[in-house]
Amino acid sequence: MRKVCIIITTRGNYAKLKSIIKAIHNDDDLELQLIMGGGAILERYGNITNELSLKGIRICKLIHFLIEGEIPVTMAKSAGVALSEFATAFEDLKPDVVITIADRFECLPITIAACYMNIPVAHIEGGEVSGSIDESIRHSISKLAHLHFPATKSAAERIKRLGEPEGTIFNVGCTSLDVLNDLNLNDKNVILKTMRDKGVGPSINIEDDYLVVIQHPVTTEYAKNLTHVNQTIKAIDQLKIKAFWLWPNMDAGSDGVSKGIRMYREEKHPDFVHFFKSLPIEEFGPLLYNSKCIVGNSSSGIREASFLGVPSVNIGTRQDGRERADNVIDVDYDEKQIKDTICSQVSIGRFEPSYLYGAGRASQKVTETLKIFDFKIQKRITY
Amino acid sequence: MRKVCIIITTRGNYAKLKSIIKAIHNDDDLELQLIMGGGAILERYGNITNELSLKGIRICKLIHFLIEGEIPVTMAKSAGVALSEFATAFEDLKPDVVITIADRFECLPITIAACYMNIPVAHIEGGEVSGSIDESIRHSISKLAHLHFPATKSAAERIKRLGEPEGTIFNVGCTSLDVLNDLNLNDKNVILKTMRDKGVGPSINIEDDYLVVIQHPVTTEYAKNLTHVNQTIKAIDQLKIKAFWLWPNMDAGSDGVSKGIRMYREEKHPDFVHFFKSLPIEEFGPLLYNSKCIVGNSSSGIREASFLGVPSVNIGTRQDGRERADNVIDVDYDEKQIKDTICSQVSIGRFEPSYLYGAGRASQKVTETLKIFDFKIQKRITY
Amino acid sequence: MRKVCIIITTRGNYAKLKSIIKAIHNDDDLELQLIMGGGAILERYGNITNELSLKGIRICKLIHFLIEGEIPVTMAKSAGVALSEFATAFEDLKPDVVITIADRFECLPITIAACYMNIPVAHIEGGEVSGSIDESIRHSISKLAHLHFPATKSAAERIKRLGEPEGTIFNVGCTSLDVLNDLNLNDKNVILKTMRDKGVGPSINIEDDYLVVIQHPVTTEYAKNLTHVNQTIKAIDQLKIKAFWLWPNMDAGSDGVSKGIRMYREEKHPDFVHFFKSLPIEEFGPLLYNSKCIVGNSSSGIREASFLGVPSVNIGTRQDGRERADNVIDVDYDEKQIKDTICSQVSIGRFEPSYLYGAGRASQKVTETLKIFDFKIQKRITY
Amino acid sequence: MRKVCIIITTRGNYAKLKSIIKAIHNDDDLELQLIMGGGAILERYGNITNELSLKGIRICKLIHFLIEGEIPVTMAKSAGVALSEFATAFEDLKPDVVITIADRFECLPITIAACYMNIPVAHIEGGEVSGSIDESIRHSISKLAHLHFPATKSAAERIKRLGEPEGTIFNVGCTSLDVLNDLNLNDKNVILKTMRDKGVGPSINIEDDYLVVIQHPVTTEYAKNLTHVNQTIKAIDQLKIKAFWLWPNMDAGSDGVSKGIRMYREEKHPDFVHFFKSLPIEEFGPLLYNSKCIVGNSSSGIREASFLGVPSVNIGTRQDGRERADNVIDVDYDEKQIKDTICSQVSIGRFEPSYLYGAGRASQKVTETLKIFDFKIQKRITY
Repeated sequence: MRKVCIIITTRGNYAKLKSIIKAIHNDDDLELQLIMGGGAILERYGNITNELSLKGIRICKLIHFLIEGEIPVTMAKSAGVALSEFATAFEDLKPDVVITIADRFECLPITIAACYMNIPVAHIEGGEVSGSIDESIRHSISKLAHLHFPATKSAAERIKRLGEPEGTIFNVGCTSLDVLNDLNLNDKNVILKTMRDKGVGPSINIEDDYLVVIQHPVTTEYAKNLTHVNQTIKAIDQLKIKAFWLWPNMDAGSDGVSKGIRMYREEKHPDFVHFFKSLPIEEFGPLLYNSKCIVGNSSSGIREASFLGVPSVNIGTRQDGRERADNVIDVDYDEKQIKDTICSQVSIGRFEPSYLYGAGRASQKVTETLKIFDFKIQKRITY
Repeated sequence: MRKVCIIITTRGNYAKLKSIIKAIHNDDDLELQLIMGGGAILERYGNITNELSLKGIRICKLIHFLIEGEIPVTMAKSAGVALSEFATAFEDLKPDVVITIADRFECLPITIAACYMNIPVAHIEGGEVSGSIDESIRHSISKLAHLHFPATKSAAERIKRLGEPEGTIFNVGCTSLDVLNDLNLNDKNVILKTMRDKGVGPSINIEDDYLVVIQHPVTTEYAKNLTHVNQTIKAIDQLKIKAFWLWPNMDAGSDGVSKGIRMYREEKHPDFVHFFKSLPIEEFGPLLYNSKCIVGNSSSGIREASFLGVPSVNIGTRQDGRERADNVIDVDYDEKQIKDTICSQVSIGRFEPSYLYGAGRASQKVTETLKIFDFKIQKRITY
Repeated sequence: MRKVCIIITTRGNYAKLKSIIKAIHNDDDLELQLIMGGGAILERYGNITNELSLKGIRICKLIHFLIEGEIPVTMAKSAGVALSEFATAFEDLKPDVVITIADRFECLPITIAACYMNIPVAHIEGGEVSGSIDESIRHSISKLAHLHFPATKSAAERIKRLGEPEGTIFNVGCTSLDVLNDLNLNDKNVILKTMRDKGVGPSINIEDDYLVVIQHPVTTEYAKNLTHVNQTIKAIDQLKIKAFWLWPNMDAGSDGVSKGIRMYREEKHPDFVHFFKSLPIEEFGPLLYNSKCIVGNSSSGIREASFLGVPSVNIGTRQDGRERADNVIDVDYDEKQIKDTICSQVSIGRFEPSYLYGAGRASQKVTETLKIFDFKIQKRITY
Repeated sequence: MRKVCIIITTRGNYAKLKSIIKAIHNDDDLELQLIMGGGAILERYGNITNELSLKGIRICKLIHFLIEGEIPVTMAKSAGVALSEFATAFEDLKPDVVITIADRFECLPITIAACYMNIPVAHIEGGEVSGSIDESIRHSISKLAHLHFPATKSAAERIKRLGEPEGTIFNVGCTSLDVLNDLNLNDKNVILKTMRDKGVGPSINIEDDYLVVIQHPVTTEYAKNLTHVNQTIKAIDQLKIKAFWLWPNMDAGSDGVSKGIRMYREEKHPDFVHFFKSLPIEEFGPLLYNSKCIVGNSSSGIREASFLGVPSVNIGTRQDGRERADNVIDVDYDEKQIKDTICSQVSIGRFEPSYLYGAGRASQKVTETLKIFDFKIQKRITY
């Protein structure tokens, strides 16, 4: 029975891996080895270990690897700690395959730990194009991974052009859409309950138009993240449309973004913005679906929003190069552009759902492939 | 004045970077920041710090990152330590560009440390194809690096196909050939002196035919390295042609290779083999040039040997996919094949020099490019 | 000229070392090597690097060693990172003596790094008795240190009984009192400015009676810190005396304490409590001096408060065994006891100043000793 | 059932813990958690994992923590890695008590890991006096440990004077003598077999007089270890009495000692010295018992030799302060003194056995105490 090691280091990862975890957990032919670490097990980023335990899923290891600081040098050092700690975990668990995902800074060292220990790696969501250091990390992981589960046709094509053998690439669609498929997105009670239980700031009347705002730091624009988020803050503050604002990921630069948000909250006490640390996809799904527009630079504005037909205003470089459906309009770090584009997007209203990132059936395809795939540990570029 | 950080972690790296170090050291427009670490500063792998100090080159940092063990898990952990330690060093030195080389296991984490800290990386000898984990590491580094100095035309072409912008790729040839160009390779006194001063085993009459043998571990064949080297040992032992045998690199699996060699030495006390830990290129150059054949799986059998026209018997998978000139014949881990091919190669004698890996003028091109290249820290795949 | 390496890892350390830093900085016979790290350079614990830079003191190294989590296993791992990182720093700086202080979890590994590298260690504030893991850490450091600067006569006596040679022990008094000696403690404008610029919560009328509250986690009571702090919170909440509450140190368990405070703030929005992350001693001094009572388990309630004659209610086990002047009354983690004792202390009013912890002239004695002390790197117990 | 975690990091540790491991393994009321790491699992220091596996004892974790280099900075860094790695292991194994031993550099960080995680520590062989950094480490561990098993009466007395509560101190004697008690020390066939199977150098006629030589580095005399061992080498070389020479421990400075021995071997090829990497106590016991004298600075010359009545020449400072029976004569690092003293010791012949270090019944006492001891995690100095 193949032992599949899945690693969750952020809530974002969890949203993407949740359907696969469930599928493997329920499959008699695969053994799930779940490792949690990083922000996913820290209170201040919204610890999610309880959510899993509640579902009866055993967590094999908790791995702390984040060196406090959220600056470039601590990002590098955290990556070093992750590499070393995951090596220990893999030595203990001896998985047959390690699942790694997308492009966060810890995913590359985790991949290296597995590769150096001759453990095959399956990579989810490779082959896309974006900004930030994520762009380099994603392709670098592709060149280490032995099996690829891209989310779009053009991502699959790109992995092939990177010299990966065609038989190792499976376009399965975006795994986070699986969860959306299972939700009753119209149920506004979920939103009301979430707002009651979580976050800070005023209660929002969700029958009114509202926005969802998520702005993450861009590591390659490290010094400017505070300036950049302030443009968004000013736009939102002037529009006075109700908004749910989600806290940024913990990356080099998140300090700058957080500072902007914190100062805004403490100085202006906006009575039309409710702030969340982070939300599970089950709560985020209905919140996004019923919003008038998503604003910021989260990949949710590109993927989930297009699948749900929600208008999206994408700010700055973080998603540069990522494929977009018609619901997305790109703007600069510019208060006026952001404001005007939000207005026009809100006035347009809901788009047709797009299947650019698949139809929400990824987990089954991933699971079936993991069972039978014939891994070759020695890689070779195809050209 | 640009600060160029060069990192030496093995004698092999040193041979390749020596000409560039010298060129930068002598250039008024560049500041050299030399870091040494890993095996390059350990006695048991042939510490080379003195060689540099003697030349008046200041070593900025000595970095110890090798966790003893030489097994896959310690390779991964050493990589983690390297990532963390080099981050500290870069934070201190604040280089404008970091030079990383080829495909050793520590080069990938060193590259990551620089990238995560938004320091541009120039990669030497990318784009080639080989076996072992090196194959994955090399291409993975290419997808992180900002500037590429491949050693062959087809390597340059391959980096381009990996999606790196054409203007970032400069085919400069193999940097280790620069040093060979400056040597008097006919001077056999160098060999005599080296044999007198270094290594263990009998004195060899170098007027007789002799072989050079170097067999490194293959990390992806971790458990079989002892068996594999024993095939070579048996072939050499039966041929009884004089031989200089160089100790393997320190990688996961080197324990197996070392054990084979050590047992052979202690049990058979061969009176026709002289063993060296490792040699500087100035001593290795004449030794190789005057030999009848190089045997094993070192890249020297592919690069330096072709430039010098020395016949080469390449064993096993380690150099799989790497471009070869006519002087190389590939064989399996098979005692008889190895033996027979050595015989036929020795009987053929010297080949015409090949310029497949350049003409030994790499360092000047590298230095000139480093001075003026316009680094873009945000990478983007070209397709 | 002796190179003296001083390490600051928390604001508390800084308060204690400030006068010594200044003295060494101004001394022509000593060279100051200042390293800052841990919570002292993190925004969320009140980064103090700027305060130093403003004074023209060069910071040689910034060292990040805190693995996020604030649970026992991350405390241990952070200690491991500290040990390794400080070794790197010492290798670079080559100090003639390292100053280490008191009993925080990082001070022991820092001491070990120096000792293992044959660098003499001078220990400030050894020999005292307390609760928590601090008790073990403090004496363990004494057995590694080469020179001792205890703060009281009985602490000096205790170090001698630990088998340290009499000639290595100098009772200099508590170094943090030096700074108090230089302040105009009556100047209430300092308090007003601090309240205006820092912290959250309502503005407090400082002409009214007010308390200062500081409750740190006790690592050896790891699981109970939330319960314990809640007793204090209830007492304060019922008393409704105005209060300034300082956030806890970052130790295993601080998460529990923080959670208690955060929940209190967010649920009750007390209009008589102003919260500070942490304060420099120059601002903390007047705040404490003008308060009616200090409450909690900070050592300030024992040392600074006795020197200033401020009544103190010391809660729980953290300061167990530490010498007290008459101003201190000990209570259990018990809401009623805490409440009643605060009332009686407030009604008593200011005490006579005590010189139990010295007279605020420590830094000069320390500096003079550092200049001439004849360090013996080989230690030997005296019995 | 109490889970007792025992850690072996060197062959020396193993010899001392072997009888306790066996006793716990066979006890139904205790669960053995065996961790091996450091030199004990490395081939080049004589990997001993197989010896344990052969006895049916399960090894829970293998921990690699040695950063190559064997210089002070790598000793410190290895300690840092050990602290972090053992924290991971303890988090996984959740022992009820951790057994730590004596005074090696890794034992202090291992103790810290346990203490910081609120796991009680039992310390074997504390309270003795010696030279090197070991002296500081040993007492520092005593101040962290919760239960003490010293090997002599005066060591027990010293721990008490260090302020440890009397009820936590149990003088059990030296644990390594337990194994000697179980051996047939007269059986010279063991020596013959060992010499046949292990080590390098000529076969020695053990009916002749022979010496046992073991010289470890002294970390606090880091730069002089080569010079010091050369005095011993010259003495042995001139005496021409047959000798078995055991390789040094791996500490900062072992490089110097090893170099001296290696150079002697390679230059002089002495035909009367047989060299061993290291030996299990079962083989070392008869070798020592039948020798005429033990020479060097190993603690075996003090403990085991006195119990067996073998004359001992103790060189230099490493054992300074350790209690001696009449069989020991101390000499300086001085060729002539060493030579003369060996001669006189050999001529004296066997001494009466001494019970200074107990009678070889330690393991039973340790095991019984571990079962019932009432651990208090909060320590408090007794004065």
